[in-house]
Amino acid sequence: MAESWSFLDTFDPNFRPLVVIELAKGTKEETIDWFTKRIVDKKANGGAQLLIKPLVTENGNENIYLVGASHLRLLLGAETVGLVKECNDNSMRTFTYSSRKTFKDFADDNHNFLTMAEGQYIIKHELENLRAKDEKMIPGYPQAKLYPGKSIVRRLLTSGVLVQIFPLHDREELKKLRHSWYGQVKVGYQPLDEIRCYFGETVALYFGFLEYFTFALIPMAVIGIPYYVFAWEDYDKYVMFATFNLLWSTVILEVWKRICAIMTYRWGTLLMKRQFEEPRPGFHGVLGINPVTGREEPVYSSIKRQIRIYLVSLPFVCLCLYFSLYVMMIYFDLEQWALDYHEENESNFSSLMLFVPSIIYAVVIEIMNRIYRCAAEFLTSWENHRLESSYQNHLVLKVLVFNFLNCFASLFYIAFVLFDMKLLRQSLATLLITSQILNQFAESLLPYWLQKRHKKRMKKRMCALKTDADLSLVEQVNLEKEMGTYFGTFDDYLELFLQFGYVSLFSCVYPLAAVFAVLNNITEIYSDALKMCRVYKRPFAEPTANIGVWQLAFETMSVISVVTNCILIGMSPQVNALFPDSKMDLILTVALVEHLLLAIKFIMAFVIPDKPRDIQIKLAQLEFESLEALKKQ
Amino acid sequence: MAESWSFLDTFDPNFRPLVVIELAKGTKEETIDWFTKRIVDKKANGGAQLLIKPLVTENGNENIYLVGASHLRLLLGAETVGLVKECNDNSMRTFTYSSRKTFKDFADDNHNFLTMAEGQYIIKHELENLRAKDEKMIPGYPQAKLYPGKSIVRRLLTSGVLVQIFPLHDREELKKLRHSWYGQVKVGYQPLDEIRCYFGETVALYFGFLEYFTFALIPMAVIGIPYYVFAWEDYDKYVMFATFNLLWSTVILEVWKRICAIMTYRWGTLLMKRQFEEPRPGFHGVLGINPVTGREEPVYSSIKRQIRIYLVSLPFVCLCLYFSLYVMMIYFDLEQWALDYHEENESNFSSLMLFVPSIIYAVVIEIMNRIYRCAAEFLTSWENHRLESSYQNHLVLKVLVFNFLNCFASLFYIAFVLFDMKLLRQSLATLLITSQILNQFAESLLPYWLQKRHKKRMKKRMCALKTDADLSLVEQVNLEKEMGTYFGTFDDYLELFLQFGYVSLFSCVYPLAAVFAVLNNITEIYSDALKMCRVYKRPFAEPTANIGVWQLAFETMSVISVVTNCILIGMSPQVNALFPDSKMDLILTVALVEHLLLAIKFIMAFVIPDKPRDIQIKLAQLEFESLEALKKQ
Repeated sequence: MAESWSFLDTFDPNFRPLVVIELAKGTKEETIDWFTKRIVDKKANGGAQLLIKPLVTENGNENIYLVGASHLRLLLGAETVGLVKECNDNSMRTFTYSSRKTFKDFADDNHNFLTMAEGQYIIKHELENLRAKDEKMIPGYPQAKLYPGKSIVRRLLTSGVLVQIFPLHDREELKKLRHSWYGQVKVGYQPLDEIRCYFGETVALYFGFLEYFTFALIPMAVIGIPYYVFAWEDYDKYVMFATFNLLWSTVILEVWKRICAIMTYRWGTLLMKRQFEEPRPGFHGVLGINPVTGREEPVYSSIKRQIRIYLVSLPFVCLCLYFSLYVMMIYFDLEQWALDYHEENESNFSSLMLFVPSIIYAVVIEIMNRIYRCAAEFLTSWENHRLESSYQNHLVLKVLVFNFLNCFASLFYIAFVLFDMKLLRQSLATLLITSQILNQFAESLLPYWLQKRHKKRMKKRMCALKTDADLSLVEQVNLEKEMGTYFGTFDDYLELFLQFGYVSLFSCVYPLAAVFAVLNNITEIYSDALKMCRVYKRPFAEPTANIGVWQLAFETMSVISVVTNCILIGMSPQVNALFPDSKMDLILTVALVEHLLLAIKFIMAFVIPDKPRDIQIKLAQLEFESLEALKKQ
Repeated sequence: MAESWSFLDTFDPNFRPLVVIELAKGTKEETIDWFTKRIVDKKANGGAQLLIKPLVTENGNENIYLVGASHLRLLLGAETVGLVKECNDNSMRTFTYSSRKTFKDFADDNHNFLTMAEGQYIIKHELENLRAKDEKMIPGYPQAKLYPGKSIVRRLLTSGVLVQIFPLHDREELKKLRHSWYGQVKVGYQPLDEIRCYFGETVALYFGFLEYFTFALIPMAVIGIPYYVFAWEDYDKYVMFATFNLLWSTVILEVWKRICAIMTYRWGTLLMKRQFEEPRPGFHGVLGINPVTGREEPVYSSIKRQIRIYLVSLPFVCLCLYFSLYVMMIYFDLEQWALDYHEENESNFSSLMLFVPSIIYAVVIEIMNRIYRCAAEFLTSWENHRLESSYQNHLVLKVLVFNFLNCFASLFYIAFVLFDMKLLRQSLATLLITSQILNQFAESLLPYWLQKRHKKRMKKRMCALKTDADLSLVEQVNLEKEMGTYFGTFDDYLELFLQFGYVSLFSCVYPLAAVFAVLNNITEIYSDALKMCRVYKRPFAEPTANIGVWQLAFETMSVISVVTNCILIGMSPQVNALFPDSKMDLILTVALVEHLLLAIKFIMAFVIPDKPRDIQIKLAQLEFESLEALKKQ
């Protein structure tokens, strides 16, 4: 491999820009020279051996650079990041340059062997792994300290010299993708493989999950419709519905794991080896020795972090939960007031007024969720986690607990303290529908509109200037650098998680929730697709093998929903009528049924294999091969 | 490495016998010649390159062979099986012959670098991996078919030519071990590292778990004693005891994982790579192509197996469960009869008679458990599982479900159908104590006594013969080949599992159970140690990193015990008195507390890391090193 590296040239006539680097205005020449030299420098000298070109615009150099790489460089990079590609014999294998001929569609002149998203991922990885050698600071910025092994790009980002790095859209590809994704009116699956090629696995997996989840909700929606149409109020029917619902939710979550394994196997990420995790960009501490790597890097005491978590974050979260409950009580006062008003002056207006408190509360909940989200991000960042994954876990936990309470506390209160099923149904409907409308608006339509306005203004300014050969690229870069940044799938999953809660927690009271969820998700697919293609900068592809912590979150929700549904059914007058003599027998029966259902859930989760048989065999094949190779070594 | 193999000689003047092979009497010369040739043959020719020597006894060749290996051969074998040893820098690494100098205590003339148990494990591994090349059958036995790749030893075993293979005891070492293990009266820990060196990791881990579990029960026993001494009957005290018990059982199971990680890291098995699993000896089927290895081997349809499992085994298990419940009902009739008898003729004899049904029932339970065990083994073997691990899992599941019901059904019936706490306490005590006494007797003392009688007879016979230089070895082999075979830790764990059930399921009714459990376990340590050292053949060492499915079994038991204890407390008159107005409030409170406790359990299991921090760091170090090595490659 050392040989192959030396073949590389840092100049390529067929330069294809993949990634844009925007430096701050007024960045010192000295810094730019040093940084660009490090990017193009040979691997042996500690460089990234990439290609870089300034973007020349009319009004002079705006400190924007385009980064690319030769085809050979990308192939070597693919080996470094451990990409898994399909071989000629249809098996998936880790790509190595020396075995390149065995891979499907590989040809030395086929520059499409790696997708553009993969190329961008490789460049991002190489840039982030550009490490300081003996520099003590960033040239020109003495306050931006460096130490051997520190990622240069991360230091440039934290010191504000580097504004952003983002991958370029491929307008041709994007157009094709848009067309097959949401351009035509059709009933069918999303082009997940194309989405994956363009946006990477994390985004494609989200859309895969969204689609799967929507399909999985359809049976529930179909069963739910007659309850509304025929106004069925028999509890025995509700019991059937709830039981079906509970078993169904277990099945769909288990089956998802299998479908996810099939997809990520096809995409190669199921087999990708975990890379060693570097400290996250925001991590800081005094210089010390990392016990794992033996390298000098910032070290932060784990005890200090624990203290911050348990003595500051935990009380803060509890306070927020208390505040959320307090707001809920105000909502109930409002609700009571509206009810009184309705009773006093019965009119169309007053019956409309009955819905007002719920709508206000739904809006307040959304606002509180968003404010809390910022606070949680600040706190988790202040806890100073070393790894991105640990940061994400703590953030997800904080946000989930609060959002769960914030969204569902009022429903629990209505159900299990007020025992008011009518109000529960009404609140549930209002909360669900309001939050769906708010979300669709805030997430996609508003940014889309802003983006469109911005684009128009941009176009006008561009047309005023004289056009030259490169204008379309300049225009594209200038447009894209102003676009919003897509911060990952967190919010999208969170929305689905809360929706799952609305559908399953009180399913026996409001079977129509699944119908609304399905309708919402169908538009959600389109609005999220629009958001990805039109509103945001292209995100860097992020390989992933599963939906991670969200699987656990959804499973927890389905366990909680067993409990709530059993209690709701136990409280119903019809079921109560079956046990006229003894309340005790009723409650014991309900408790027994609940425990049985929980046991069935756990047994089902245990019995259904997480990976389909053919994927298991393929994984075993690879493991067997590597063991055999080790033996022969 | 190929070079090192050629240095090996198949003759060694310092032959040290490690493993004994006993062939059936009257085995054909042709077969013996072929088999021994394959054992000593060079690795390149498909042999095992071991040393073999017939055991010469007075009354001619009894078809017993001693197998050993040169020091170099064992070192190369250690690399093949992937042994992990301690390095000079105190880290644990996979042993390779080329890096041998970096390992602690390694010297070319130090023949104790590998323990005797490790040597025996390597020889067993090499013998089992002796595979047929182009032989169509075992020479001399045309009905014993072979196909390329079939393990010769396994075919010889199934066709009855090979009676047994077992490792020899090391009398010197065993004496030392016996002394430090149970030879002296002392309070302290068992010499787990020495046990591991002599018996291997699986056995040592069982004794480690037994010791840990005993220590963990002591707090419960200490708290339980005053309940007996002061005859506390206040339920608030029982509530406290049960709550402590539940949280404690979660903590001890979580902490065990950490302790287990510490031990197995020190022993190297935590880092050992999983080997590719070969079909288990009893597996049969038509010759086909294994989809994983691509090799020709017997294949058995997975659908057929599923049919056997769900249409035969499952109904059979259900039938057994029904039968067990039927026997239980007979026990209750007997109990009623004894009670009636006691009421009619009140006397010392009649009050003793009260205990008789329980004792009979306890004995019957033990007998049924043992019969069912045989049936379960037969059925699971008939299900024809390809892998030993899958066989074990199905067997454990069958046995656990039945034993659980068989042992605890009567207690559940008494507690939750008869609501008779006094009878519950009495039955619990009788069952626990009877089963402990029976177990200790059947497991260790009876075999020990049989073994002693046999040894005496043997000694007499030996003394009658004239002694020569090798007699002690001949005597030893003849003695050991008649000893019982230790079938693994299954029964020992099962006993602990049931004991854990007696202690935790109804802990709030009979706090003294923990005291009996502690007393039993202390003697159990000694009787099990006696059993290992005196009664059974030395077992082959079996590397393992944890207690496997038993961890799950114990955790499930502790979840069930939360439910039972909450119900018991809810049923108590004292707690009932707290809710004089409404039974409903009482049950709701109990259900709430139960769910809270379960939630706390799951959160605790989630929050407590499975491996201590320093082990995590060491594992991360190794992972980082291998990633770095891959990069540099």
